[in-house]
Formats: sequence, structure tokens, C-alpha cells
Amino acid sequence: MNSSFGKNINISLFGESHGKGIGVVIQGLPAGIKLDVEQINNEMSRRAPGKDALSTTRKESDIPKIQSGIFEGYTTGAPLAIVIENSDTKSKDYSILKSHMRPGHADYPGNIRYGGFNDYRGGGHFSGRLTAPIVFAGAVAKQILKSQGITIGAHISQIGNVLDKKFDAVNIDEKELTALLSKELPVLNDENIVKMKDEILLAKQEGDSVGGKIECAIIGTKAGIGNPFFDSVESTISHLAFSVPAVKGINFGIGENFANMRGSCANDEYCLTGGEIKTRTNNNGGITGGITNGMPIIFEVVIKPTPSISKEQRTVDITSKTETTLEITGRHDPCIVQRAVVVIEAIAAIGILELIKI
Amino acid sequence: MNSSFGKNINISLFGESHGKGIGVVIQGLPAGIKLDVEQINNEMSRRAPGKDALSTTRKESDIPKIQSGIFEGYTTGAPLAIVIENSDTKSKDYSILKSHMRPGHADYPGNIRYGGFNDYRGGGHFSGRLTAPIVFAGAVAKQILKSQGITIGAHISQIGNVLDKKFDAVNIDEKELTALLSKELPVLNDENIVKMKDEILLAKQEGDSVGGKIECAIIGTKAGIGNPFFDSVESTISHLAFSVPAVKGINFGIGENFANMRGSCANDEYCLTGGEIKTRTNNNGGITGGITNGMPIIFEVVIKPTPSISKEQRTVDITSKTETTLEITGRHDPCIVQRAVVVIEAIAAIGILELIKI
Amino acid sequence: MNSSFGKNINISLFGESHGKGIGVVIQGLPAGIKLDVEQINNEMSRRAPGKDALSTTRKESDIPKIQSGIFEGYTTGAPLAIVIENSDTKSKDYSILKSHMRPGHADYPGNIRYGGFNDYRGGGHFSGRLTAPIVFAGAVAKQILKSQGITIGAHISQIGNVLDKKFDAVNIDEKELTALLSKELPVLNDENIVKMKDEILLAKQEGDSVGGKIECAIIGTKAGIGNPFFDSVESTISHLAFSVPAVKGINFGIGENFANMRGSCANDEYCLTGGEIKTRTNNNGGITGGITNGMPIIFEVVIKPTPSISKEQRTVDITSKTETTLEITGRHDPCIVQRAVVVIEAIAAIGILELIKI
Amino acid sequence: MNSSFGKNINISLFGESHGKGIGVVIQGLPAGIKLDVEQINNEMSRRAPGKDALSTTRKESDIPKIQSGIFEGYTTGAPLAIVIENSDTKSKDYSILKSHMRPGHADYPGNIRYGGFNDYRGGGHFSGRLTAPIVFAGAVAKQILKSQGITIGAHISQIGNVLDKKFDAVNIDEKELTALLSKELPVLNDENIVKMKDEILLAKQEGDSVGGKIECAIIGTKAGIGNPFFDSVESTISHLAFSVPAVKGINFGIGENFANMRGSCANDEYCLTGGEIKTRTNNNGGITGGITNGMPIIFEVVIKPTPSISKEQRTVDITSKTETTLEITGRHDPCIVQRAVVVIEAIAAIGILELIKI
Repeated sequence: MNSSFGKNINISLFGESHGKGIGVVIQGLPAGIKLDVEQINNEMSRRAPGKDALSTTRKESDIPKIQSGIFEGYTTGAPLAIVIENSDTKSKDYSILKSHMRPGHADYPGNIRYGGFNDYRGGGHFSGRLTAPIVFAGAVAKQILKSQGITIGAHISQIGNVLDKKFDAVNIDEKELTALLSKELPVLNDENIVKMKDEILLAKQEGDSVGGKIECAIIGTKAGIGNPFFDSVESTISHLAFSVPAVKGINFGIGENFANMRGSCANDEYCLTGGEIKTRTNNNGGITGGITNGMPIIFEVVIKPTPSISKEQRTVDITSKTETTLEITGRHDPCIVQRAVVVIEAIAAIGILELIKI
Repeated sequence: MNSSFGKNINISLFGESHGKGIGVVIQGLPAGIKLDVEQINNEMSRRAPGKDALSTTRKESDIPKIQSGIFEGYTTGAPLAIVIENSDTKSKDYSILKSHMRPGHADYPGNIRYGGFNDYRGGGHFSGRLTAPIVFAGAVAKQILKSQGITIGAHISQIGNVLDKKFDAVNIDEKELTALLSKELPVLNDENIVKMKDEILLAKQEGDSVGGKIECAIIGTKAGIGNPFFDSVESTISHLAFSVPAVKGINFGIGENFANMRGSCANDEYCLTGGEIKTRTNNNGGITGGITNGMPIIFEVVIKPTPSISKEQRTVDITSKTETTLEITGRHDPCIVQRAVVVIEAIAAIGILELIKI
Repeated sequence: MNSSFGKNINISLFGESHGKGIGVVIQGLPAGIKLDVEQINNEMSRRAPGKDALSTTRKESDIPKIQSGIFEGYTTGAPLAIVIENSDTKSKDYSILKSHMRPGHADYPGNIRYGGFNDYRGGGHFSGRLTAPIVFAGAVAKQILKSQGITIGAHISQIGNVLDKKFDAVNIDEKELTALLSKELPVLNDENIVKMKDEILLAKQEGDSVGGKIECAIIGTKAGIGNPFFDSVESTISHLAFSVPAVKGINFGIGENFANMRGSCANDEYCLTGGEIKTRTNNNGGITGGITNGMPIIFEVVIKPTPSISKEQRTVDITSKTETTLEITGRHDPCIVQRAVVVIEAIAAIGILELIKI
Repeated sequence: MNSSFGKNINISLFGESHGKGIGVVIQGLPAGIKLDVEQINNEMSRRAPGKDALSTTRKESDIPKIQSGIFEGYTTGAPLAIVIENSDTKSKDYSILKSHMRPGHADYPGNIRYGGFNDYRGGGHFSGRLTAPIVFAGAVAKQILKSQGITIGAHISQIGNVLDKKFDAVNIDEKELTALLSKELPVLNDENIVKMKDEILLAKQEGDSVGGKIECAIIGTKAGIGNPFFDSVESTISHLAFSVPAVKGINFGIGENFANMRGSCANDEYCLTGGEIKTRTNNNGGITGGITNGMPIIFEVVIKPTPSISKEQRTVDITSKTETTLEITGRHDPCIVQRAVVVIEAIAAIGILELIKI
């Protein structure tokens, strides 16, 4: 088992949903980076639960306690370690989960994987709560990338039946990405905010949940980042994206539309724009041959509906080895897409930082 | 740069399309595995070029010369290294590519990445030709997995506008996977063979190319393989899948259909089948929480149309820094989907072997 | 920078001597290991400072606060993370160290390495204090190895001019190793306890420090552990040993005595002992060809005298770029050999656990 | 099993002494390095066997056949792969080794490690012959380091009872290192050449072998290279050094002399020399806190006598499980110290290149 990622910038996650604390150790950060703690906390609060009717009622302040790696406001070059306490834990909610496997969750595979010794409370180490330290690491990565002229932003491109429009893959700019941050839900077409909220609240009302998609853009990356084959930009980002619980698909550029397209349409022809080599279209999402070509990097992930639902579900009791049913009564999110936006941005930032090797 | 993958089973690729040879070093193989060389060569020939009108006319026997790691028919436990000679190289075809960047190819990003020192002939190290050693490694991995009861197979699920039906994610069996190997094109619905060939030949006739999709199934994996977060099954397989040139998207299970689905439909409920814990549906493609749940692993990749086309394309000359046009006259494939099927199976095998830690 | 070790069992250290806390994340531990916390704390106290006149007066309880990875007394298989608070920090002692480089310490190379941003207080991340989490990891590793029949022990083989006798490399047993734990100083010849204490106290009295050697034995390892070349047992143990501050040399088996020996004397001839293959001598310290041969693993490390001494030393002021002198007034150890014994055992345990791949 | 080293510059060895070929894949080399092939071949010949009465009569030209990674004389940035053919193999010499374990060799541990499937001919993958590709990688590394002002050289510091003088750790310069290359044996005191040859030939005459020591210097490294703890300079170099068959000990700087020294003597005081910060002495061998301090890096390794000797030795027959005797009749070296000098330089070069992260 390895809850660790990266050779240049390495992040090692730890923690379980209802243990003492969760956190991350980040290794390989350059020394002398001035970190804006307020901005980090802003990022943390974008993911934090308990803020509105759209998410779980579990309240966690999610304040990262820095143990090491920062001295007088600057990174020291030594590992940056944080601990986030688990404060609002209600372990009694979870006792039945020791035997009743929740459909769609890691309960059963985790039980087999760890011989029944895994902490089953709230999903244990599998909990989406572990994305909090990922967001922390992403916030640090974003600040470093910012100093290199790289900006990352994402929007909800779909929730249930409501589809937002897509990024303009050629012309997307920082202003558009920044504008997303001040919206109630980060969408390109503001009319979708109410529609998406309705979609989520409707699912909630029915004791159900709903899925969606998130489209992410990375702008400002120069051509020549990444590697052929195993450390390609797509390999790196997808590796990280599928580390985020509930992600079940990823497309780069126009993705599956490539399947029924001719090469003559799919190829992004080169041109000179202000003396710089650019492509006329950006079907490849800024990556060809596994390496950045200087255009915006665009990818989209599919988020499955939260497996935790109030509705009765059929399952098995692994203790008695019988079929049974289960109603999940704990606190949970009717939709995690909106909370996952900052997580997807975080893994994009971590992936690019890994490849840039500052 | 790192053309290497894996901690338990490590493969290190080397070679350039028009250099002396290409190959792979495989580390971490257990000793004492009897390797069926004929079956390996069968796998190599599934990918080899020059066989029919659907692929490039470059003829390469692709016979792997084993340097080490096998003694008297069994793996020794030492690194297994092979070299495949480049025999049918026509370097004159490629001289213009030093300055004229082919759209959709790695030429330009590669040129920037390596400061112009990359071998530009035939794509150099970025060439799809490097998937030959991947197929070799995959063939070895398949044999080891076979002894563990695991079988891997794939079919073309789409070429251009022709869509094959999907695997039955719950009931897919070895027989169905084996049957695919004897078909002219590996599809589930035989009527699609002619249709897909027509789609490819039409593109070829027009000096164009066409993309598609490949769906892959891994059956026989027990529950409990994989890890939460960064070494999840999805992270591992997607990392490898995007290492295959031209792959631009991947979905696990029902993939993007999760986006507009309710949790109550998406969740795979558990049941007991012959005393074993199974799921009633397999929307998650055999993986929940990043770990196998004992159901077939199902994923689908998107393959973009071959960027090499005969049609005139607009591009830039990086030597003179001017806009220009390019007609690619070398040998190339109108479609690589059919040749990529065994490559996708190979990376699936390598990924599972990495996770199983035999 | 990478304060991390291991592929199978990975430990990631964090912390700085005068920061909020230090700790370690251990990944790859099998689930279901019952951990004896009392024994872990015993190991911690073997290294802890402030116990007697032989070590620094800095008092640290060194109690590890477990954040995750243990549930109801057993490992969960998720990362095991601990934080140890820095309680007795006197940062005022260290202010001059920002500019006056202490001879023999990491101050100057660290300042260059991190562009002056490293936490200079008490050596920051370079501090010997970071061996506390190493001891924790080692204590966990020892318990797992114990269940595999492997025991690790070490003794002080030299302090200054006082030499202890060496382990009997062929016949060393668990009893002898256990006996070392109850002695005031772990030596084979009890007469050396007083002599070594005198050697240390004499150095202390003179405001000086003294070095020594530690010999370590690992018994119970079967033949066949380790790898040829880069992951040999010697490579793994030496890599870890030189991670311990102040270690400047390591020998396996008879070490440098091999240099003036003939092969006919040096080779350990095989024999059958009770049906098992053993060697008649153990000059190779239990390792041939990088792999264990079933005999006790024996190695010895050289520990340099603590660089912190009260005596005036010549140095440079890097702020003013002038030569100057320095008297170190903080608390420090006249000898760290006795505190390092458990650290050397710890890295031996971590190394073997890494190679065994439980 | 992992015959691979390095994160930034990765080398993966392959091959067995009597297989088809041996070689190495080097990943992570920067593109655009002009490689001097003649100089590489010079380095190869420094290690090659069959040159004089001091080494084995096995004749191998050891010419590396470059498969990839070099184009028009420059590195392409893609993996640099070479194959060296095994031409002078006499497998009949080795058949008895399947059952009769040679003392001091990897035969027995290797047999257990690989369940008897390892290639036992000539030591298989454990053979010292595998140091040929290490020398190749080292020769490439040296050329890159040279362009950074770093030079590496080594001398035989001991063979049997003959001791050479030590490097002047403070003042050692490139001229002195270069001078070693033109000597019949690389020693600092030329009188030792005849004495060492006599020592070797005497051992040879008696059907025996003899060990020794090699001292290596790395000059021109700036302060600030390396890391605290696990990726320290000492950890990196020792890891590599113990990968070289027959190395059984390593000391940095004055090594074991630290054990009976006071801190006031051991510490290297800082001074200003021509405006640069230097140390007055260099007891620490250029490394403090695991990081270079700008002084020459000095280390010494112990090489055990070649285990292959003609004299009768007692051993076991693992097939019949009986005690027996063995006379090794194959070709072998009475001393490998002189051939190992360039190997030690090679691992020093690889280690420093890994740490410098060009």
C-alpha cells in the first residue's frame, strides 16, 4: 500500500476519517517559497463540508496545523508536514458498517484488502475526507506554479442532466478562471447555478445522490513539459485524478470525440501567433506525444454519484454471510461534484509541479 | 525523462524508430516461470505492421532477441532484456521532419523538450513502434497472470461511426475473450468487421485516418487488489493506458454515464452467488475505492486518428520560423485501433501484475 | 530533497529541531499487526535525551502521538503516522548560528543547499533529534521481524580508546542480544562500562566530545534475502546507516580485515549443521553476493565525535564574510554513541523489513 | 529484484555472465550532450579482462553496441541503451556449480533466492562481468560531470600487505588524478607498483587470491549537494559502492579514525581561502550533514579477495545434501582490486550525477 505520489514533489497522505488526525507530508519543495497562508485556507474552505444544504452536515474547520517545513513564512526545503484534526466524529453512526458492506463504497474491497483490520468508521483511510490534505498540497503547488505564470481553474461541466458549456480551449484566460471563484457554483453559464442546485436538492430530497463532470484548465504552461510514454502529462494527471474518490473517467482535449473523427479534422495545425508557435485548434488539450505543446491543458473528469444514500439498498452481511439490506443513516453529501472542483484543481497543480521539476 | 514503469514489476523501454534497435528490460519477474515463446511471438504478430491493407507497409519481423533473464526455458529472476532490431528503416523519408512539425505528432513538443537533439526520424523514441516491447512485456505478464487464473481480452468497440456492442460486464467469460483472437478484427458483433474495414479503407483512400475505441476486460481477479488513493487500480491502469501513443481518454465501468445517474442506480448492490460475494450490476467496472471487488474489470480507451495523413496540412517550419504546409509521404497507418488492441491488453496485464505483487 | 526511504516499507520523516513537531509516516505496513505500545515506548526512551550525565540536558518526553494507521491495537494497513512534540526548545540559544557556521555540523552545507532558508535553530531538519521518529519506525519494524524469528541487537564496540570485544559472528544468539538491554551501557565485556563512562565524562569535563563504534547483529534471517547489485543487503543497510547523523563508516563482517587477507582464509566454507547449510566461519557477515546466506548479519558503524563542543573553534561568519571564532553554549551531548545504539538497531530493522517484503 | 538505481539518472542493468549479452539502459540523461566514444572505450578497457598476468584469461572486447539514445554524436534525451556481447564463454567450465556451492560467492544465496532457477554459469547475473555496463554508465556520467568542473579519480590504497599513501584530502588536484591513469597500477607512491604486482602474482602462484582497498576522490563539487537523511551523499555513494561485488566496507574522510578522536580534533574548522569558504582540514571527506561542503569528497572501500581460488575448499553439494570439496578450475582473477578501480570511479560518478540533478 502506498498513499504516496511523486518523485520530484512527493506527497504522502495519512489519516482515517474517524482517527485522531489526517494530514500530508510534502517533500521536495524548493526552499525560500513565501507561502500565503490565507490563500491556502481559502482553498481549504472551498472543499470543507458543512457549509450549505448541498453538502454533508459534518462540520470540520479543516485548519491545517503546520508541523515543519515553514520558518518565518518561507519554506525551509525540509518536508512540509501538516496535521488536520478530526473534530466532528460520531463513531456510533458507523458501527453497522463493520459487517454491512455499503454498495459503491470501498468497504468490501477494503475489508478483503486489509483482512478486516481496516478502520471501517466513515470509510477510514478511503474517506473522501482525505482529499483535504490533497487540497492543502494543491494550494501550495498552485502558489509555486503561479510564480511560474501557470494558473489552474475548473468548473462544473455537468451535474445530472444539467450541462454547462465547455471552456474555449484555445482562448481560455486567467480572468475567466478567476471569475469562477466568486460564483456560488463554479459554472461558465450562470443560468446553470440554479439548475444544478435544484438537481442536487431534488436528489437529496429523495434520499438519493447525483453525479457530474468537472472540466479543468491549466494555462501558462510552456511547450516541452512531460515525457514520452510512462511519465507523459496525461499519465501523470490521470494517475492523480483517479486517486480522487469517485472519479471514474477522464478525457483530454475533445476526448471521446476523437473516436469518430478523421485525422484531418483532429490534428491541431500549427501557426505563428505573435511570433510564437501555437495550434489553430486545441483538440489535443495542450498535449501531444505526452508533452505539452504550449496550448492550454484541458481535461474533464467524470464523478460518480456519492455512494452514500439514504434509500434502502440490498447488500451482504460479511459476518453472517447472508444477504441483507442497508439504510445509511450517517451524514453524507447528495452530490460531491461541487466540493470536488478544488480537489481536481489540486491534483492538476501537483501533477504539473511534479513534471516541471522546479 | 523516464521511460520506465513500476515498482514491483518494472519495465524500462528503450529505442528510437530508426535507430539500431528497440527493446525493454523487465525487472522483478519471479524466477522459475516457464515462458511459452511461441505465444509471445503470436502476441508480437498481433501488433506487427505490414500484414494487410489496413496498416502501414513498413515490414518488421519484430522478433525479440532475448539477452538475459531466461535460462533453459525458465525465468532466472534476473532482469529479462530483449532487443528488437529495426530492419526496414527508410531514413530518407523523414529528413523534412527536422524542420516541418507534423500536426498531432510529438515533433514540436519533443523538439522543445530535448532542445532539438531528439531523433526526429519516424518520431524517434515517441514512435508507436515502441509499443512492440510493451507488447512483449504484456505477453510475459499475461502468462504469469494466466497461472493465477486471470485472463485479459479486448475488442474494438468503435471505429469512426461504427460501434460494436459492449462487453456484458457481469457475465463476460474467458471463452468470449478467446473467441476474439481468431477473428479478422476483434469485435463482439461480427457484422462490424466489414463495416469497420470499410471505414478504415475509405479513410485510407482519402489520404486520411480514423480513430476509435477499445474496450478491455480483465477477468479472474480476486477482490482486494489495489490501493486507496495513488496506487489505485484505476490510477495504475490509466497511467499505463496514457503511455500508449494516441490514447486520449479512459473510462472505467459505465464511465461518463455516471454523470447523469442517481446513486441508487449507479451503486452496485452486493449479493451472494454460489456462496461468493458478487455485485448484481457492474457499473463500477470491478473497482470500488480503487480496489478490485472481484467482478470483471472493464475499461474503455479512446484512440485518436493517426496523425500521419497524406493530405496537405498547415504547419510551421521551426528553422525558418515561417508558416508552411506539409504532405506526409512516408508509410503510415490509416487506423491504428486494430493494432492497438493487443497493446491495451498488454498494459492491462502489466498493471495488474504490478498490483498483484507475485 | 527526500527524507524518505523504501519501496516496500516506506518511511517519510518530517520535522525540525525547534519547530512544532517531528514525526514519521510509515507506509506499506501489513494490516493486522498487533503493536505493543509499551515496547515501542521502551525503545523511544533508550534514545531519549536528558536521562543522565552522559547526554544533553534537553528534556523531551518523546511520546509519539499516533495519528492514524492503528485501530483497536492493530495496524489497519493505512499509513501509520505519528507526531512527537518539541516541548523543551530554547530558541534563543541558537540565534548566533544564523551566521556563525558550526564546524562539523550541517550548518554551512545546509545554508548553501537551501539558500539560507533552512531552519538553523538546533540544526533544524538536520538535527539528531530526527532520529526519534526513526527509532519509532524501527521499533515497529522490530516487532514485525520478531514474529518472523528475527532479532536485532547492538553493542558499543568502541568509545574513544576503549574497545569492547566483538560479537561471535557464528554463534551469537538472542539471549546475548537481550542481555545487552539491561546494562547501563550495552557492551559485551562489562568492565568496559566504567571505562567508557570515564572516557565520556573526561571529554565532557574538557568541553570536548568523543566518538566510537557500534556493532550490530541481525539473527534469524533465512538465506535468500536481498538482491544482486543495487538492492543488496549491504547497499540497503549502508544507505540507511549513513542517514544517521555522525555515521562516517561501515563494515560488514570482518570488513577492512579483508584487505590483507587471502581468499583461502576469507572465504566462508559451507558445512551441514543439523541438516542445514551453514558456513564454518562468518567473515562475510552473513551476506554473500549481496544476499543473506543464513548466518548472522554483522556490521559495524563508525560514529564521529559530536561536533557540538564548548571549546572555542575557528569558523566564518557568512553574513559578514569574515573569519571569526565560536563557542557553542547550548546543551549538547559529549558523546552520542550510547544514544545511537538503538538508532542503528532501528535502521537495521527497517532495512531488513524493506528487503523481506512481508 | 531490482538491478536498477536512481531517480534522476536511472541505470538498469541486465545480463548474465554466460547469456547472450549484458548491458544497461540509462534514463534521465539530458539531451544534447556530446559523447566522446573513444574516452568511453578507454574506460571500458581499464576494466576489461585478459590484458595481463594479473587478471583472468577470459578475453572479452567489451565493446558497447549502442542501441538508442545517441543520434549524430549527441544524446537525444531518450534512454541510452547498450548491449555488450558475451563472446568468450566456456559454459562447460561451470556445470559442477549447479550443485557445488562456491564459498564466498553468491551461488548458494542466489540458489535459494531464485529457487534454483538462476543461471549458475559463471555467477550468472551476480558475475563481476556486470560491472562492465556500470563502467559504461560511469564513463558517460564522468563526461557530463567534467563539463560541470567535476573530476573523479581513484588509486589502489592497499593490496594485501602493501599500503599506498593516502590522498591529501585538502589539496588533491586534477593533475594528480590524471597522472594515475598512465601508470601500470594506479598508486600514489610508484614504488608500490612492483610490490603490489608481486603480492598479486604470489597469490596467483599459490592458487589463491588477495584483497585490498581503493581510495577515491571527487573534486570540483560545490557546497550544497545532497540531502539530509536518506539521500545523503554518503548514503548515495555507499548504496552504489556496495552494489559492486566484493566491496565489504566503506569509510568517508578519516573514517574509523573518528572513533578514538575528540570533537575538537575531528571538526573541520572553516576559513576563508581566496574569498571562498573552505575547511582547514578535511576529516569529513567533503561531506557534513550528508551534504557537500565544497571540499574534495574522499572515500575508501574495502575489496575482499576474489572468492574464486584454485585451492581445494570444503563446501556442500545441494543436490545430494552432503558435504564435499571443490576445486575451481575455471578462469579467474587472483586480484580484482586493480580492475575495480574504474568501477569505483564509475559508481562515484553515477552517484554525484544523481544528486546534482542536471
